[in-house]
Amino acid sequence: MVSLAIRTAQRQTSGSIDPILALTRADMARVNDLILAMAGSNVTLIPEIAEHLISSGGKRLRPMLTIASALAHGYDGQNHVKLAASVEFMHTATLLHDDVVDESDMRRGKRTARTIWGNQASVLVGDFLLGQAFKTMVEVGSLDALAILSAASAVIAEGEVWQLAAAKQMTTSEKDYLAVIDAKTAALFSAATEVGPVLAGKGETERRAMRDYGRSLGLAFQLVDDVLDYGGSLAELGKNTGDDFREGKITLPVIFAYARGDASEKAFWQAAMEKGENDDAALARATELMQRHGALEATVGRARHYGEEALAAGASLPPSPAREAMLGVVEFCIDRLN
Amino acid sequence: MVSLAIRTAQRQTSGSIDPILALTRADMARVNDLILAMAGSNVTLIPEIAEHLISSGGKRLRPMLTIASALAHGYDGQNHVKLAASVEFMHTATLLHDDVVDESDMRRGKRTARTIWGNQASVLVGDFLLGQAFKTMVEVGSLDALAILSAASAVIAEGEVWQLAAAKQMTTSEKDYLAVIDAKTAALFSAATEVGPVLAGKGETERRAMRDYGRSLGLAFQLVDDVLDYGGSLAELGKNTGDDFREGKITLPVIFAYARGDASEKAFWQAAMEKGENDDAALARATELMQRHGALEATVGRARHYGEEALAAGASLPPSPAREAMLGVVEFCIDRLN
Repeated sequence: MVSLAIRTAQRQTSGSIDPILALTRADMARVNDLILAMAGSNVTLIPEIAEHLISSGGKRLRPMLTIASALAHGYDGQNHVKLAASVEFMHTATLLHDDVVDESDMRRGKRTARTIWGNQASVLVGDFLLGQAFKTMVEVGSLDALAILSAASAVIAEGEVWQLAAAKQMTTSEKDYLAVIDAKTAALFSAATEVGPVLAGKGETERRAMRDYGRSLGLAFQLVDDVLDYGGSLAELGKNTGDDFREGKITLPVIFAYARGDASEKAFWQAAMEKGENDDAALARATELMQRHGALEATVGRARHYGEEALAAGASLPPSPAREAMLGVVEFCIDRLN
Repeated sequence: MVSLAIRTAQRQTSGSIDPILALTRADMARVNDLILAMAGSNVTLIPEIAEHLISSGGKRLRPMLTIASALAHGYDGQNHVKLAASVEFMHTATLLHDDVVDESDMRRGKRTARTIWGNQASVLVGDFLLGQAFKTMVEVGSLDALAILSAASAVIAEGEVWQLAAAKQMTTSEKDYLAVIDAKTAALFSAATEVGPVLAGKGETERRAMRDYGRSLGLAFQLVDDVLDYGGSLAELGKNTGDDFREGKITLPVIFAYARGDASEKAFWQAAMEKGENDDAALARATELMQRHGALEATVGRARHYGEEALAAGASLPPSPAREAMLGVVEFCIDRLN
């Protein structure tokens, strides 16, 4: 935490999500109202599933970032609320489909929609949420914002397919993995923040800064998540530790441990990831091997690197409470490791 | 066929898809090139699955209608090619997800993508195609076209969820069923044709005519499909006769036969549709009951009604080869019943 601690001292703030919560409180109340309206349908299954997702305790980080980024650029209209709700629906649709693809039973400590309503409903309601997201974005009337968000939509899905194809192959490299999370996670963070300056009528310089901020934050966020999957508890994480391992997901800690392991360890990882030999004893051994080889520390190092990049990009914003809130999110994200 | 025959005689043409094939041949070659480009990805699974779908022998009716509708309104730009390709991708994404939801093994006489590459890849590649569709639409730069197509996207998914929820309930009424196919089938036909006058800069009168034409054609098209599922052969249909029955899909012929059946017949339909007692003997009895009660004829009557409405809406177009091609499609659709 040395370099982040230095930055934190310079800025006289600590990594916290509180400033962005305070900054966006009023707008997020309207985002929530809009989300409920967008999830409305005479087909009662749709609001039922949407309500389950909405009440599932997600932090709504992405829509808060859209709001904060718009405010950081002096936007004083109302369309940031629509884009924020659309971003959250894009994310929620992805989660619904991910849980089907990963056959996940739990998310954030709650049963997944697919275990309650089935895979079929999860697929179709995901499609509905995505359709509503696009419809709401179009209402905003900004072709630039539409271009950013529709491109992100295609990139996210491409990243998911890539991950599916690479999921059980221990030949996945660090570079491969970073490309996957760049697409499946960082692209939406990046789009969510880039639309802020677009709404405020700013140019390419401001857009690039927010694109970079969002992308780097998204990468850091995902890498921290990957580490916590081998180190956190259900209570703090909202997901089951070891989920990635049991689903045979090759994340960066696995890639590092595999690369640094001897022949018998490599055989262990192949059996675990490629053949599904992933019971509790195997998870314990996986965690032990990661610790022995410094695989989690190395992943933390990468997360910090991207955190620094996000802070640098965010630092280009003019001073404002919105800027402080956005920088605080980066530090909060990294601080989850402590 | 009386009333359609009269119209046909007045217009001195017969129902055929040949005029629209000839009219759109050059543009559809460019649509096909664009579709291949949109399906391109370094993630090889994506072009593999897309190629399977593209080569699967669909008629590409929807993109041809977008091209024809633009030409019928005097459009001489190039954006109709982009919207046509986007419409086809929206349709293809829906098919991929439908096959997962319906657990279908065959479509148009070929194995479905999910039986070759799995449900997971089908869900995610469908999402990718939808993302590419939106991205391509945004490039066109028409907010009106985006509003039409994004609204259709949400309505289609809503119709699919509705059908899922109603799928196994014999309480589904004719009105319910028409609302389902209005959403899941007619909405895309309607959007595909309404964007034609939008591209050509026409107003609400022309848009409404094309919206009505597309919607009525879509309803007729779906009802004809429903009839053929109890009467066609695999060769002419490109799908297995009896698919809807075996999947427990309650279509209009079933609703009519159930409504007109006595208590023991109602019990048969409930067992078949709600409890999955749908072997070959049950299919034979279902077909026999439909014939006895005129359920197929009644559905044909509804299809003809919507076909007439589509012809009436299309007749408002100024005379042109594009108009003749669009009217020919309606008659072709109904003629499939002969």
